[in-house]
Amino acid sequence: MIKARVTVTLKNGVLDPQGKAIGGALSGLGFNGLRSVRQGKVFDIELEGSDRTAAESELKAMCDKLLANTVIEDYSIALL
Amino acid sequence: MIKARVTVTLKNGVLDPQGKAIGGALSGLGFNGLRSVRQGKVFDIELEGSDRTAAESELKAMCDKLLANTVIEDYSIALL
Repeated sequence: MIKARVTVTLKNGVLDPQGKAIGGALSGLGFNGLRSVRQGKVFDIELEGSDRTAAESELKAMCDKLLANTVIEDYSIALL
Repeated sequence: MIKARVTVTLKNGVLDPQGKAIGGALSGLGFNGLRSVRQGKVFDIELEGSDRTAAESELKAMCDKLLANTVIEDYSIALL
């Protein structure tokens, strides 16, 4: 079994209203000195098999097809 | 400035219907050999200052107060 963590984040320059709202809420709670907050998604995926190269290319295909919107999002794949 | 990445994931044993739905969608797209998919959140946070110890404890407080529901979620903090 192969475990992987896929992290999907907004590209630089893409507006992140959700992150802004979280930053505002943190400031409201008394946390000062926040410069920015941006939110992304993380997927912990377990795959059958043990071929790490195949797993990596399959995960890449999953990101391109479903997990990330590559117009506005970047993704990174880490095999654990 | 200190950059940090906070990752919030569901604790083991907590049902993740969103992850299950994503796994189902991936199977429907022809990706076989998926054992499990679990979704979490990631926050990229930039803080003023340069005191890494203070930043870490402030980030921990943010997680406990707002970013994570510690009843059902775990969090990890990585200073970059």
